[in-house]
Amino acid sequence: MNENEQRIFDSWKINAKSWTRVIHHQQIESRAIATDAAIIKAVKELNPQTFLDVGCGEGWLCRQLFSPGIDGWGVDACADLIEAARLYNDSRFIVCSYSDLRSQKFENILRFSCLICNFSILGQRDLTQIAEAGCHLLEDHGKIIIQTLHPLIACGDAPYEDGWRETSWTGIGNEVFHPAPWYFRTIESWIQEFYGYNYRLLNLQEPCHPITKKPISIIFVFERC
Amino acid sequence: MNENEQRIFDSWKINAKSWTRVIHHQQIESRAIATDAAIIKAVKELNPQTFLDVGCGEGWLCRQLFSPGIDGWGVDACADLIEAARLYNDSRFIVCSYSDLRSQKFENILRFSCLICNFSILGQRDLTQIAEAGCHLLEDHGKIIIQTLHPLIACGDAPYEDGWRETSWTGIGNEVFHPAPWYFRTIESWIQEFYGYNYRLLNLQEPCHPITKKPISIIFVFERC
Repeated sequence: MNENEQRIFDSWKINAKSWTRVIHHQQIESRAIATDAAIIKAVKELNPQTFLDVGCGEGWLCRQLFSPGIDGWGVDACADLIEAARLYNDSRFIVCSYSDLRSQKFENILRFSCLICNFSILGQRDLTQIAEAGCHLLEDHGKIIIQTLHPLIACGDAPYEDGWRETSWTGIGNEVFHPAPWYFRTIESWIQEFYGYNYRLLNLQEPCHPITKKPISIIFVFERC
Repeated sequence: MNENEQRIFDSWKINAKSWTRVIHHQQIESRAIATDAAIIKAVKELNPQTFLDVGCGEGWLCRQLFSPGIDGWGVDACADLIEAARLYNDSRFIVCSYSDLRSQKFENILRFSCLICNFSILGQRDLTQIAEAGCHLLEDHGKIIIQTLHPLIACGDAPYEDGWRETSWTGIGNEVFHPAPWYFRTIESWIQEFYGYNYRLLNLQEPCHPITKKPISIIFVFERC
């Protein structure tokens, strides 16, 4: 891990409890009004038999997909988040870093229909590790579904080019968050990097804020060639 | 043609001479500093044997591609622009509307390596007509290369959703332009519409302004499946 990646890892350890509360109480407006529903819809449209939620956090998305009977697993590098995820009497959650993903075993599932990364590709090398893991963990024509901040919106006043940025966690519930860096990518880069690992774009969606009508996130669906 | 499409057609008739002067004198800053070079690069990267420049205007891009020996044709619905294009002693320019493209014959070329649409998909049905024409005019795995305003930038304060918009032609050279409507599409729509006609995205580029470092246009390269 480089310094920024270590800072991301450490921040989740510090933020795990606050994050779990914020997600439980649906205190992130963009998630409540748009992006939660958007990722569920994007996954269900693919009609997957199995999924792996990469960076599952406290597990809300897994539970949403387990509920109608889609089988899968959640993984997260943060042990405290996985502990929170397991509180709901489902054991399909594993502590696993992205770099260990390709060799991780999942009891009953050898290959997944899809990997899901819902706002969970934060570091620079996460993308590489997940794209490579997909080659081992995805069935033929398996999909990687990524939701992330819409680059044009997330860019703010900074140059529109790849690079490390600092988070602003202000204004989420009443919780205090320890800040962490994240790696910004342009739309061009998201697509080109996955193409470089032999995926192709199957679908791109731009969920919008229902009131402002501006994009709030972007969803890429890549297929393994 | 519906009313908006008729207005676009009529505006080019009125604007043809002003437009020709503006292009000659490189008076559109974004073209001079970024987008002209970007489209030439995008085409040359594909190493095409032949091209069809759809909505070629006064022909500058064709001449740029003829010059290193790439064979091709330029078509435009506006007769005055094609007349201007032919002033340079090259006859490979034809007056042809997008709706007539699929049945248009080109003396020496039966199928093209690529169609190029450089800021020339303005109306709503242009996309459909060009996508369908591609099925007749492109060789197997032929490409459609589109450069257009970057939707997130072009959107301005309006809702980020498909629909007709009014142009603002202000500030281009010292010329007066007759305004015309154009049809706005989100990035999601550009991709989904071409996918609906059995193309796939091969490449997406976001040329940036060299000073502000903000996207100035977007280039889609679609391949015929």
